[in-house]
Amino acid sequence: MTTPMTKAEKSAGLQLGAGDKVGIIAGSGRLPANVAESLVQAGHKPFVIRVAGEADSGFTGYDGDTLAIEQFGSLLPLLKRQRITHVVLAGGISRRPLLRAIRPTFHLIRLLPRVAAALARGDDGLLRILVNTIEDNGIKVVGAHQIVPELLAIEGRMGAHAPRKEDWADLDAGLEAARAIGALDVGQAAVAIGGRAVALEGIEGTDLLLERVRELRDNGRIAGRKRGVLVKCAKPNQELRADLPTIGPATIDAAHAAGLVGIGVEAGRSLVMDYGEMVARADRLGLFVVGLGEGTRR
Amino acid sequence: MTTPMTKAEKSAGLQLGAGDKVGIIAGSGRLPANVAESLVQAGHKPFVIRVAGEADSGFTGYDGDTLAIEQFGSLLPLLKRQRITHVVLAGGISRRPLLRAIRPTFHLIRLLPRVAAALARGDDGLLRILVNTIEDNGIKVVGAHQIVPELLAIEGRMGAHAPRKEDWADLDAGLEAARAIGALDVGQAAVAIGGRAVALEGIEGTDLLLERVRELRDNGRIAGRKRGVLVKCAKPNQELRADLPTIGPATIDAAHAAGLVGIGVEAGRSLVMDYGEMVARADRLGLFVVGLGEGTRR
Repeated sequence: MTTPMTKAEKSAGLQLGAGDKVGIIAGSGRLPANVAESLVQAGHKPFVIRVAGEADSGFTGYDGDTLAIEQFGSLLPLLKRQRITHVVLAGGISRRPLLRAIRPTFHLIRLLPRVAAALARGDDGLLRILVNTIEDNGIKVVGAHQIVPELLAIEGRMGAHAPRKEDWADLDAGLEAARAIGALDVGQAAVAIGGRAVALEGIEGTDLLLERVRELRDNGRIAGRKRGVLVKCAKPNQELRADLPTIGPATIDAAHAAGLVGIGVEAGRSLVMDYGEMVARADRLGLFVVGLGEGTRR
Repeated sequence: MTTPMTKAEKSAGLQLGAGDKVGIIAGSGRLPANVAESLVQAGHKPFVIRVAGEADSGFTGYDGDTLAIEQFGSLLPLLKRQRITHVVLAGGISRRPLLRAIRPTFHLIRLLPRVAAALARGDDGLLRILVNTIEDNGIKVVGAHQIVPELLAIEGRMGAHAPRKEDWADLDAGLEAARAIGALDVGQAAVAIGGRAVALEGIEGTDLLLERVRELRDNGRIAGRKRGVLVKCAKPNQELRADLPTIGPATIDAAHAAGLVGIGVEAGRSLVMDYGEMVARADRLGLFVVGLGEGTRR
């Protein structure tokens, strides 16, 4: 990791005591592994709760357990049994719970009224309920970036390539669109080509969004338009301890396959996975990656 | 056609004189054929300009010509040669012009500064330029609904089935999302399930949007959530003479395949293709179709 850190990012770092034990609720992607490795390097021994069907099958070798999303009524008893003091929600959870597969437990039944209210408010509401419920039980919920501060996207250029002037029109259009759909609690990403947003992320996620753009290019719907960018930004009311917009080496590959020339992410409110590898890959493929902040130079 | 018409819709109807000749610029879908048939029934003989790669291959039997989207520099000379007095832009044009395939003609070169400005403003800007350019040459551009007023979506229920109370939450969420992306000039449609928008239309169009929802259901991303709706509405700054949101029998089939239970369209600013067949199909498959207006009953 060679990311320069700003003062704000450093201060976001968390001081863990000797008696503290971190539980990682592991969804999809490389983030859970990044967090776990970083904890081990700092001398801690994380407990990993893998979300069934989401956690990466290659992410093993840690103390832990696996829970289906429908078994989250058992989460609090498990956290208490393991004497977890801090919980990190890391990685994506794209599936919604199958209501018919939920086994009613005592803890879950106590939660139900809040969960029902949260479901009515969308994804972000649900996350916030999960966070509040864990914290009500004396366990701290912390963001992945508090455990691994260098994950936070910096402002400005990452890597060798920079946006051209015309790419800034795409970055602006993509950011406007991503913000608008974030305000609706629908998604965090948009693809802009030729100065306008052409594809918006819903619950399908960024991988399928980029796959769609690749197909649209292949079948001529974006014929004659080269370049274009992916923009990711946090929702205006984002729960910052979970589900921050994330990019990594795989995002570079997918953006490149979709014929895009760069990626913009919201600085300070997005995560960059495997920074060194991501930058190396972007440099090799000719893509720019830029952290967008209030003062980012156009 | 058994659609009841409101006063406003009737007054939108156009009086064509004996010397008038209507040119239909035919994009994809059933709309161009609907317009052509209606004109023939009224005793007119339309001239059909098929957009290559877009116009339905089954739509034949009319006087006309075929133009690639890259040949639109020849459109005005063609309209004048044929003494067209009114032009209808009907059907979708999903492909963007391949700039390298455009043959520079005299007319096109005169247009270029305006086209370049329009491209920078997105789809709707481009349409407006096309409309203005045609009208500057003394040819009227009229909306398909002015030729076939009964195409306009009415307010309220169409067909036998009505939305349930919980479906109204989806209709509201879908409408909010569709309006937001319309304001960005990105798309005109959204799918809402479980009270929230889950998929948004970009340039891929409604067919691929619904196909995506079907896949998301199949792979469990929307597991445990039945019902859900498609909502289409015009963009706030919509050029009303072109590209109105459109539904028809095929939309019913695609929405049903995606596991949705109904469709909402903006009343008075959306088109319904093959009304009788659409309603029959919706009735048979159990879907509701509702025209959304200011006063639509919840």
